[in-house]
Amino acid sequence: MSRQASEDRIADLRRDLHRRPERAWREFYTTARVVEAVESVGVDALHVGPDALATDERMAVPDDDAIAAAAERARDAGVDEELLDDLAGGNTGVVAELHRGEGPTVALRVDIDGLPIEESTDDDHAPAAAGFRSEHDGSMHACGHDAHAAIGVGVLERVAESDFSGTFKVLFQPAEEVIGGGKAMAESGHVDDVDYLFAVHVGLDHPTGEVVAGIDGFLAVEHFDVTFTGESAHAGAKPNEGRNANQALAAAVQNLYAIPRHEDGATRVNAGRIEGGTAANIVPEHAEMAVEVRGETTALKEYVADHARRVIRSAAEMHDCEATVDTVGDAPSAVSDADLVDLVEDTSNGHADVERTLRRDDLGGSEDATYLMKRVQEAGGLATYVAVGTDHPGGHHTPTFDVDEATLGIGVDVLSESVLAVADERP
Amino acid sequence: MSRQASEDRIADLRRDLHRRPERAWREFYTTARVVEAVESVGVDALHVGPDALATDERMAVPDDDAIAAAAERARDAGVDEELLDDLAGGNTGVVAELHRGEGPTVALRVDIDGLPIEESTDDDHAPAAAGFRSEHDGSMHACGHDAHAAIGVGVLERVAESDFSGTFKVLFQPAEEVIGGGKAMAESGHVDDVDYLFAVHVGLDHPTGEVVAGIDGFLAVEHFDVTFTGESAHAGAKPNEGRNANQALAAAVQNLYAIPRHEDGATRVNAGRIEGGTAANIVPEHAEMAVEVRGETTALKEYVADHARRVIRSAAEMHDCEATVDTVGDAPSAVSDADLVDLVEDTSNGHADVERTLRRDDLGGSEDATYLMKRVQEAGGLATYVAVGTDHPGGHHTPTFDVDEATLGIGVDVLSESVLAVADERP
Amino acid sequence: MSRQASEDRIADLRRDLHRRPERAWREFYTTARVVEAVESVGVDALHVGPDALATDERMAVPDDDAIAAAAERARDAGVDEELLDDLAGGNTGVVAELHRGEGPTVALRVDIDGLPIEESTDDDHAPAAAGFRSEHDGSMHACGHDAHAAIGVGVLERVAESDFSGTFKVLFQPAEEVIGGGKAMAESGHVDDVDYLFAVHVGLDHPTGEVVAGIDGFLAVEHFDVTFTGESAHAGAKPNEGRNANQALAAAVQNLYAIPRHEDGATRVNAGRIEGGTAANIVPEHAEMAVEVRGETTALKEYVADHARRVIRSAAEMHDCEATVDTVGDAPSAVSDADLVDLVEDTSNGHADVERTLRRDDLGGSEDATYLMKRVQEAGGLATYVAVGTDHPGGHHTPTFDVDEATLGIGVDVLSESVLAVADERP
Amino acid sequence: MSRQASEDRIADLRRDLHRRPERAWREFYTTARVVEAVESVGVDALHVGPDALATDERMAVPDDDAIAAAAERARDAGVDEELLDDLAGGNTGVVAELHRGEGPTVALRVDIDGLPIEESTDDDHAPAAAGFRSEHDGSMHACGHDAHAAIGVGVLERVAESDFSGTFKVLFQPAEEVIGGGKAMAESGHVDDVDYLFAVHVGLDHPTGEVVAGIDGFLAVEHFDVTFTGESAHAGAKPNEGRNANQALAAAVQNLYAIPRHEDGATRVNAGRIEGGTAANIVPEHAEMAVEVRGETTALKEYVADHARRVIRSAAEMHDCEATVDTVGDAPSAVSDADLVDLVEDTSNGHADVERTLRRDDLGGSEDATYLMKRVQEAGGLATYVAVGTDHPGGHHTPTFDVDEATLGIGVDVLSESVLAVADERP
Repeated sequence: MSRQASEDRIADLRRDLHRRPERAWREFYTTARVVEAVESVGVDALHVGPDALATDERMAVPDDDAIAAAAERARDAGVDEELLDDLAGGNTGVVAELHRGEGPTVALRVDIDGLPIEESTDDDHAPAAAGFRSEHDGSMHACGHDAHAAIGVGVLERVAESDFSGTFKVLFQPAEEVIGGGKAMAESGHVDDVDYLFAVHVGLDHPTGEVVAGIDGFLAVEHFDVTFTGESAHAGAKPNEGRNANQALAAAVQNLYAIPRHEDGATRVNAGRIEGGTAANIVPEHAEMAVEVRGETTALKEYVADHARRVIRSAAEMHDCEATVDTVGDAPSAVSDADLVDLVEDTSNGHADVERTLRRDDLGGSEDATYLMKRVQEAGGLATYVAVGTDHPGGHHTPTFDVDEATLGIGVDVLSESVLAVADERP
Repeated sequence: MSRQASEDRIADLRRDLHRRPERAWREFYTTARVVEAVESVGVDALHVGPDALATDERMAVPDDDAIAAAAERARDAGVDEELLDDLAGGNTGVVAELHRGEGPTVALRVDIDGLPIEESTDDDHAPAAAGFRSEHDGSMHACGHDAHAAIGVGVLERVAESDFSGTFKVLFQPAEEVIGGGKAMAESGHVDDVDYLFAVHVGLDHPTGEVVAGIDGFLAVEHFDVTFTGESAHAGAKPNEGRNANQALAAAVQNLYAIPRHEDGATRVNAGRIEGGTAANIVPEHAEMAVEVRGETTALKEYVADHARRVIRSAAEMHDCEATVDTVGDAPSAVSDADLVDLVEDTSNGHADVERTLRRDDLGGSEDATYLMKRVQEAGGLATYVAVGTDHPGGHHTPTFDVDEATLGIGVDVLSESVLAVADERP
Repeated sequence: MSRQASEDRIADLRRDLHRRPERAWREFYTTARVVEAVESVGVDALHVGPDALATDERMAVPDDDAIAAAAERARDAGVDEELLDDLAGGNTGVVAELHRGEGPTVALRVDIDGLPIEESTDDDHAPAAAGFRSEHDGSMHACGHDAHAAIGVGVLERVAESDFSGTFKVLFQPAEEVIGGGKAMAESGHVDDVDYLFAVHVGLDHPTGEVVAGIDGFLAVEHFDVTFTGESAHAGAKPNEGRNANQALAAAVQNLYAIPRHEDGATRVNAGRIEGGTAANIVPEHAEMAVEVRGETTALKEYVADHARRVIRSAAEMHDCEATVDTVGDAPSAVSDADLVDLVEDTSNGHADVERTLRRDDLGGSEDATYLMKRVQEAGGLATYVAVGTDHPGGHHTPTFDVDEATLGIGVDVLSESVLAVADERP
Repeated sequence: MSRQASEDRIADLRRDLHRRPERAWREFYTTARVVEAVESVGVDALHVGPDALATDERMAVPDDDAIAAAAERARDAGVDEELLDDLAGGNTGVVAELHRGEGPTVALRVDIDGLPIEESTDDDHAPAAAGFRSEHDGSMHACGHDAHAAIGVGVLERVAESDFSGTFKVLFQPAEEVIGGGKAMAESGHVDDVDYLFAVHVGLDHPTGEVVAGIDGFLAVEHFDVTFTGESAHAGAKPNEGRNANQALAAAVQNLYAIPRHEDGATRVNAGRIEGGTAANIVPEHAEMAVEVRGETTALKEYVADHARRVIRSAAEMHDCEATVDTVGDAPSAVSDADLVDLVEDTSNGHADVERTLRRDDLGGSEDATYLMKRVQEAGGLATYVAVGTDHPGGHHTPTFDVDEATLGIGVDVLSESVLAVADERP
């Protein structure tokens, strides 16, 4: 296939996925489209859904109703029943493999899920103007995973068409946004024989034409689901008989953000979703929240997590409520290997459309690609996390985030050439 | 019809309504059942839905989706399409009239809506044990409005069968729990000619066998819908770029409950429902809450409302967010008229099953029956709010609230006899 | 002595005390002036300082330094050394007795301490304009106890000059403002033989010319001293090593005021004094606060006190601090006896300068006179708490509070005539 | 003088200063002792108090009473009246100069003030065991400024006894702990001709035997004094008439610590001292707090400062109070110059008692030495901030902080040799 035809097809795939963003463990349509695309390329092995995952290690799995609704939506969009059966319970994701004789085992990991953000309808927002804005109310690809999935397919195609010798895998990982899928894919066994692992992310505040050969500064992260249980009462007649779950939650939120900063480095805390009570005139019996803590190191993350648990427990006691705190997702920090960074840097420097290659940069966020990177590294392999700059008008995780599609080609080029180079050079 | 048969039918009606609680402005099945019941009694005039209300004065109307879902549920339960058309948009409620020649115009007001409470499944909870627990998940008749509607039908039947001379109306009012329906029914004109108005409530912490001839101490009340709007951001990478709506909400909740007590009497405040943000890893852009303020007098309610508005506005500013505060329901306080209280007291004292009649008691809560009472009183009529005691295991607005059905007969007796007495005696 | 000369002397005494307000358990100058005045009247028994109190029952006693400073100040003002020795440790107060043969034992209780308020310097403020503003920086008679002490002397003089038959005692009680002295005087034994007890307060929002024969609605009250202990740290270099006592205190204050209102009646809570930490750049190790809770009944006070203790304990835990909560003062509620109220009402109605006599009114505040009232009532005696109205420009406990001196004569008249009447009539 | 005799004298001076810690702008005794010591060395110019400062640029000056009390204490300790006159108003500090012919102008800056911390009485705490614990209740040299002053004298002595050619100044700066003195000394003109500036700090978590040639990572800092003004009221009778300054303060404290973290680097916030209200039973009219904000850069400090001002203003509005926010101290960040760092590193490496020399380390705190460093650097000079390790059992700013006196000699050696080297080598 011509380079241009290939690039057009990749862009079309990205737009199609953009139009149908699916949140964590609900990537039914996405999985179907990926399967279709990689089969069209032609693969030597294909692991779909439960075969791509250690299913017991999945975290942050939503409730059955949410999964069923998403499956139904995918069914309406034409996903076939047999595949939906395979993915039952939200076991989404794909591992596609090329077996090309002797040589190293190389892998590329991309993530594929969307976010619970309502996409902008502004005319300035290209997906809205060009007609591929999200059709799923309240969900959006606001972090570029649509582009990642498309790049994954593009790289697979390019390697398939090359004289690459060895084994090449593309890991299409679900549920990154809830840091729920990295561990399940890491423990599936699919990376246990990997010698070289690449992961990729677009944007990260780098413009089109920039590439970062090795991202570091992954914040360790943990997600809690928290519930407060008190007792309802008539707010007018019996206010004293209530035990107010919303008051407990409010005290917790105020004090979570006030956990002391730490001398050793950056920490983060966010009570990103809260919900409590049922009506204005009832003392609220039940409240819940989704909390995230992060740290520049795992120790710093633990520092915040310990404080957060104490704050939540005390806030509940303060208002005579009970609290539960369940970890529903986490990821460690990780470091890109210098030898592999060197190789990507060289490859990127040689690319006509790359104006500037940075050797290193800090993510400042979290990623469960770190589970896969650490798994590979602990077995003696090398890993790096590559950023492919893209002009993005709005920030990541905002309603006006978008990807400059020129980036797709650069990403496919730099990564496929790095895969080929690693097979040749073996750093 | 025999007294026993009538009482059984009333109890059946109550159980049927209990099984299908409908929240404010969604009383489609309830309206249908009331229409059926009063038509079976036989009435001289019947005003249904928009004909029973000043529709522009409705408050706390839910969104179209919620109304549509409830209408669909009622359709599934067999409510006919023509009636659903009449009630379109959630214009529920009924005014049933008997025209029996010369005499005063007397009215009875009952309310008919349910609450957003999940009903208990305990075996000790009679509706669960006897098989008429709520079939509507998350909704419940936890305040006895099922009994009120049934009593309304019972009194209509009894007056219809009597030698009553004059005009008698039963007002089946929707949306009391959100204090959204009282004003719309008061301003419909249906009580403008009423000389004597009775309202009724079961329970109120009085056991079966007690009656209170005149309830006072209605707390004036106002409901706010509050929104906080900030700006979303990636909680790990760009926490400083967010403007956190959940932090604003938490600061507001903490300080709302801390509004100073007032020397002049009781005040109340409740942030009964809160919701904000979308996911653990996103700085929340939007949050909202449903707040209720009350006061022993309207001035006290205004004191709390003014403070609450300032707290909300300042909490938003504190976190660089915007806040909106919309009043979605309110009700004044009211006082039962002594002459009508005397009459009910006498009637009640003469009833074999009433062990104790209290002349007066304080509600300690709020009620938008006060709109109807004040409308009648301002036009020179008299009004009283009667409590019919009932053994209720759980408190009002709790999952184990229930009504002792022996109460239904007492309520029908005392109120119908009071209606007849007022026509005879005209206090 | 002529009535006018006597009234002038009483006003002079009040102004002298106003100029030298002394806070709880530091009433050295005040005690000296009272002793001087009652000795000038002539008494049959005089109990000063420790002889007037059950010293072990004193509450809210300040630290030795504060007492020593006040004693030193009194010494400078000319109080003689021997009396200061008697009052050592802050055992202030006086009981003065007249023994006049057969008859009932009647007592009048007045309180004598000042408040920690800086008096206004406005020209509109009479004590400032007339030159008797407080000379003690930060202290003030902002509740009229200067007038009470003067009225106590005036009534003693009037009864001494009358043909009263029986025993009459005036109890000059220290430390009312901290509810620390009432219990110690009640348990001293001095009221154990009292048949009729009067207590008196000026003002209470009643203007000059009004008298209330029996005040009720005493709020039960309790004062806590609270400390939070954490750990200090360098706020810039080691914020994580601190355990922040100010954060614990702030969380407590926010949630104390937010303790739910109670259906049974009025409650109050106040964190009236807070203090914590030492410097901007040190994570604060220590913080403390003075908290007051009240309730319309003792049970309601206990409700608030229990919640307050839990809030404080949880706020400490939330920030990894320890908290202590010590009760430093309390007082029960009490009710004025109808028979004695009748007698005061009659007496007051007969007074030329009293324009309006109210039978009853609610205090809406607290008073440890209730300890003395209950002690007398439990032994079969009668008690009432009389309010003598006075035009007061500022509210009680504010910097512009003042007493209309015309009130002094009315107070002396109504109370002394009531004392004489009770001896004659014995209700 | 022999090296040992000199070292003993330096240690004695340090202990004497330790015994009499004086807080910012109250260093009367300290100034007197420094003057005495440098005169004993012999100097060519001496600038004391107002002659050492741009007095208009002083920040965080305490009130007259506090200054007068400290002066009185110094007078009691034998400081002569004439010097106290010179230092009137708290204009403390000393600049001592040696003029030794041709050569560069070199300066050493040390700070001399103590902290508001109560020193430990533990037997394990050397100053307590050895009898030189603070005699000033509530004040302590808990940051080593006693050692700094002594080292300043020691270096002066050593340079005076050497063949140094050029001008040498020792700047004994007051009021560092409140970041109030650095600007006033920087703008005095005394460093305008300085070619090389050294500043020194002991400890900073480095043990005895370590030296850091160039400290960086000074956090920019700003101190606010904040007041909240509401309205007092009787907490029992009129809670609604109060406007509660303590509630405003508590809301501010909770939300200050919750200012979002920033992606660009470290920030800090501390409400280190709070105080409000007067008594448990009075709604508090007045509250105040001392707040500190910091940032890794000045921009980050401004970010926190802007948020802090908004939080404070909104917290006041929330409770209907007024707030004032006054900056009472600040300092920029600064960087040590590489050439001067090289020189200190070489000197330190050559010292027998230095086991380990670090080229660079981060302070992680703030310092107003940065004002002097930037002043010198802006005029073309070089500056470095040297850390001399010392075993310190407790952390800086804690009650058990202490200095290992072996450090004094190392400090004097490394700094005086660096001064001599710079004159020889002129990097």
